[in-house]
Parts: sequence; structure tokens; C-alpha cells
Amino acid sequence: MNDATSDIFSLRGRRSTRCINVGNVQVGGDSDITIQSMTTAITRDTLSTLKQIETLTDVGCEIIRVAVPKDADADALAEIVANSPIPVVADVHFHSKFVYKAIDAGCGGVRVNPGNILHFETEVPKICATAKSAGVSLRIGVNAGSLDDSLRALYFESPAEALVESALREAKMFEDNGFYDFKISVKHHDPIVTVKAYEMLAKQGDWPLHLGVTEAGLLFDGTIKGVSAIAILLSLGIGDTIRLSLTANPIEEIKLAKGLLQALRFRTKPVEIIACPTCGRCEIELIELAEKVENAIKDLKPSRPLKVAVMGCAVNGPGEAKEADLGLAGGKGRGILFAKGKVIKTVKEGDMLDELIKLINQA
Amino acid sequence: MNDATSDIFSLRGRRSTRCINVGNVQVGGDSDITIQSMTTAITRDTLSTLKQIETLTDVGCEIIRVAVPKDADADALAEIVANSPIPVVADVHFHSKFVYKAIDAGCGGVRVNPGNILHFETEVPKICATAKSAGVSLRIGVNAGSLDDSLRALYFESPAEALVESALREAKMFEDNGFYDFKISVKHHDPIVTVKAYEMLAKQGDWPLHLGVTEAGLLFDGTIKGVSAIAILLSLGIGDTIRLSLTANPIEEIKLAKGLLQALRFRTKPVEIIACPTCGRCEIELIELAEKVENAIKDLKPSRPLKVAVMGCAVNGPGEAKEADLGLAGGKGRGILFAKGKVIKTVKEGDMLDELIKLINQA
Repeated sequence: MNDATSDIFSLRGRRSTRCINVGNVQVGGDSDITIQSMTTAITRDTLSTLKQIETLTDVGCEIIRVAVPKDADADALAEIVANSPIPVVADVHFHSKFVYKAIDAGCGGVRVNPGNILHFETEVPKICATAKSAGVSLRIGVNAGSLDDSLRALYFESPAEALVESALREAKMFEDNGFYDFKISVKHHDPIVTVKAYEMLAKQGDWPLHLGVTEAGLLFDGTIKGVSAIAILLSLGIGDTIRLSLTANPIEEIKLAKGLLQALRFRTKPVEIIACPTCGRCEIELIELAEKVENAIKDLKPSRPLKVAVMGCAVNGPGEAKEADLGLAGGKGRGILFAKGKVIKTVKEGDMLDELIKLINQA
Repeated sequence: MNDATSDIFSLRGRRSTRCINVGNVQVGGDSDITIQSMTTAITRDTLSTLKQIETLTDVGCEIIRVAVPKDADADALAEIVANSPIPVVADVHFHSKFVYKAIDAGCGGVRVNPGNILHFETEVPKICATAKSAGVSLRIGVNAGSLDDSLRALYFESPAEALVESALREAKMFEDNGFYDFKISVKHHDPIVTVKAYEMLAKQGDWPLHLGVTEAGLLFDGTIKGVSAIAILLSLGIGDTIRLSLTANPIEEIKLAKGLLQALRFRTKPVEIIACPTCGRCEIELIELAEKVENAIKDLKPSRPLKVAVMGCAVNGPGEAKEADLGLAGGKGRGILFAKGKVIKTVKEGDMLDELIKLINQA
């Protein structure tokens, strides 16, 4: 199953990027594509922020960003960094003093939005020197909110070009000061603009790229916008770390990012369910059954990844799911259990689920 | 805003395909990318099937497929077709007699899965002649469940190649009989295999392609698998009609398909919400507010499409959402209303929503 087990970069090859460190996590180069999110707790409320970081780490977050709008937030960073199980990135707007405070506090990285940092040009040499001596990486996080006035006209004509032009100017400033440990993002709320911007940017340097669609919206729209844009970019070999922005609890962002990386084979799912859409052939309560199977297997960690099929009928069942390690196909009153396309056993409808779980536990 | 308003085919150009008719709906050529789903009611229960078709049509379904496993289902087709507001496609496995019955019943199309239709090779000339004289199109719906035994070994080595080889053989049979009015699907449960298969197939002929990931799973996983694979293919210019398979109520399939086509600018959304993910800078209940705005605008049909921004703070608010026609950005106790990046008004926090809705209604 070469097609299915290799990752999506096999489609077109992964873009070659320089590797940087965000704390103890590598981004770019041959490193895994990492999952990021951002806390929603008020940063200066250290306890709540740390509690949220812990919860997010538990579901799979690997780098966490915290907003630093005020002095009190900057002052809280040292304690947050000291107690966070994952690298902390400080999100800084407007005031360069917070960049220095974040570096002092031991943050793994600082996200700067150069377009809205006051006196940015004159601060660049100092930012570079401070970050370099501390071994801290930066992210140049460009978005529509921070474009230089000179790019405003271009933005209204071609937002992707304006975002890229802004990123290129800012990357050059850092590199002119001998600083190379940064990644770039050029997020936009429109998935197509986002894809275009990253594609253009990817051709012009070897910076690791942090992917995301910004202001993607509530769970439903945000999922579609984020997943579609990031999947397209990953399929082009572009992307070293991802954030799925949602106007929702950031736990949802992590679940979604993890699901996407699993779907595209960057990550392995311990037990994967293959379930058919029900149709007019289906004579059992398939949705309910699939949900029960999903619930029963969600914490299982089998010795090797398993594919488990839940199929509504004998027509598509064992055949369509022939590579499933185990599966069941329902019929009226009775169901069949199968493994690798071969029927093992016929059982009563009411026993199907228990029999399947038994087989999974034996696998 | 050329980038944002053009569709995603502008990235790489749409693949050129022949145009076929599924009833009164065109698929392929320059026609719009259409949305399909499949009923889950038992087809021979005509009343339930028609009720479901009506519901699905109301949410945006444009072509509906119904399963035809038994004689009684085939016998119900004429009544279903006569009363369905959208073209009906019969889904036929195993028995070619149902193909003829479906054509007689006036179906707009028939989906055949040649690999599992008995004596398929000998039936092809008759199927072609019957469909041609009735002006009915077909879909060659290949999947893992119906591969010829000779492709089994290839399937386990490279599933995408096996699916494509099967589709090519079957397409050739129809074309050798002078029949060209068909589309093809090569669905798989793995998004990467699916993308590879469609990419390979797309290079070898001008058939319109029906995109889908099959057995994608329950709502969460199914959404990620379907959206990622279909978005990648659409970004390559591939795809003429889509089905987002989910083990869920087919209403969810339609909502998702519509959301994806809107996100990728194939369809216009009357009112689009741009909402920031909340962060530690946000001092209002943004998720709740965005949900309220979404709820308030969901049935609005303004004279032109509107972008409405719901932002958590002044930092990202008007700036990041500068192309929003209208928007609000929250602060503690008070919020600002803005249009095209310019602040219009400062209002009390409790009045923000009402003031925004008032502005939308005036737009």
C-alpha cells in the first residue's frame, strides 16, 4: 500500500526549507509538520493560561502562542514559559519592548507583525542581536492589518501580492542584519488569497512557512476554509507548521489540525474508521453504529495502526473495505464480520459491536 | 480584489472536459460545478424518498442518487423521477436489468459499477444503445469494491493505479460502442489515493469527473477527508461535480459541499462572516457574539454579497478586516463599528449586535 502509507508530499515533493528552533521544537528542514494554537485566556492570568496550555498539549498542541498586549502580560511570560510543557511563542504587536521582554522571559519564539510595530525599521538591528544571542527564533507574521501604507493600493488590487511584498521587505531587513532564524506567515481570511500568497512566497526563499487562514470564522466555515487552503498548500509541498484558526475553543483547532495531518498521512491514527455513507440499500442504523464503534475505539492504542470498517451492506462491505484489518457489514437482523476482505463470521445484529470490539482487542 | 473574487481555477486553469447532461443539469465543459448527494431512505418507500429529495433540494442539492438494490426499488423509480425537482440518478450494482429499468423510468443518469455488474462485457452494447436512444448519461463509478480480479495484485501495491486502470478499461468499452455521455469517478477512502487516482485519470481523457472520497467516515473525519481531497483536486482544475460522502444525514453533505464551493469562490455567499480567532487580547465573548451575528444574518439576502467582520479587539479589527463591508470590533464595555476599514461609530457593548444588524439591513 505504498500510495496510502506515504505522506502527501510524495505527490509533488516537499519544499526544501531551512530548519529553525522554536524552543526545543524544530520547524522546517526534515522536521515533522507541527501543530500550533493560541491561548484565549488573558495572558496575565497566569494560572488560566497555563491550565489552557496543559489542556491543549494533552490533545496534541506542540507550540503555543500567547498574546502580549500589555506590560502585565509581558511580565507573566517568565512564569508561563517556566511551567509550560511546550514552547511558548509571544505574539507582539505595536511595542518592540515586548519583543525584548519575551526573549528575556525565555520564550521559544516571538511573533512579530512588523507592519504594526512602531519604529520597526530602527528597532530591527537590536531585535536581531537580542534574538540571536538568546537563540530565539522569530516569526514574521504578515496580514492585511499591518500592511505598510505604500502597499495599500496593491492590496486592493491583488491582496496576495501585497502580503508577499510586505513579507519580502521584512525578511530582507532581518537578513540584512545577519538574522536568519525566522519563519514567515502570510495569512488571509480568503483561502484562495492565502494559497496564492504562500505559493508566491515559497518560490522566493527557503524560509520555513507557518500556514494558516486567519479570521476563518466559526467552526463550520472555519473548518472548510482552513482545511481546504492548508491541504492545497501541503499537497504542493508547502508548509512546515500549521495553525487552523477558528472562532471556537482552541481545542477544536488542535483536533482539526491533527485530523488533517492524519488524513494526509503525516501522522498515524491508532485506529482509523472507514465508514460508508448510508444509502437506500442500508437496512441498519449505520450512523449510530459507526458512532458507537468510534466511541468504543477512541482510546485504544493497538500495537500497530488498525483500519476498521463499518459498512451498511454486503454490496459495498467487505469488497470496498478490502484493506481494512477488521470490519463489519450490517444486514437486517444479522451482520458479518470480516478481515482483509474475507468474511470471518456471521453474527446477530445485536452482537455485531461487541464481536467487533473483541476482534480489535485481539488484533 | 481580483484574487479574492475569481474562482480557484484561476490558480492553474480548469481542465477541459466534454459536457454531458444529467437530466436538465449539465456536467463538465463550462458548466458550474454541481453538488450531489444520495438518499438514505429505502428507495421503494417512494414517499420518504421524495420527501428526502425535497429537503435536500431545499438546502442546495442539484443531482440526487438513489440506490436500486431490488425490483421494488426499480419499480419505484418512475414515480420518484416524475415528482423529483432535480435529476435522479439510479445507483446500480450487480444486475444490468436495473439499468434498463432506470432508463425506462426517466432517470437523468445511471451510475454503474461495471466491476460488479454480472456479465458486464456482454451487456455493454445494449446498455450503450439503450442509454443513447433515451439521451441518458451514465457514470462509471469505480471503487475498491468492484475491481476485476486481474487488478487485485496491483491494488495492493498501488490502489490509485488499480482504480484508474479499471476506469480506463471500462471507459474504453463504452467508447468502443460509440457511447461518450458518461462521467467517471475513482473514489477511495484515503484522500491521498483519491487525489492520485483522479490526477492520473484526468490526464488520459476529457471525461467529466465526479469527485468524492468514499467511506470518508463520520462528520468530523469525513469532513476533513472530503474537503482536503476535493479542495486539492479543484485547485488542480480537476472536478465537474462533487459529492462529500459522510456517514451522517445527507443534509450535512450538501451544507459541506456548498460551504466548500463558496470558500473556493465557485459560489457566492450572500453574507460572509470574517471572524478572528479569539486570543488573550480579546476582552469580549467573541465566539458567542460571532454566533449571534451568524444567526442573525443567515437568512438575509442583501442586494449584493456582503462581508461582515466580527473582531475581538482594536488591534486586528478594522485593519485586518479592511475589505469587510461592515464590521464590529469589541472592547471592554464598548465596541466600534466600521466599514471598509474606517470607524463609523463607537457604541456600548450591549448595543453592538443591534447596531451591526441595522447597518447590514441598510446596506
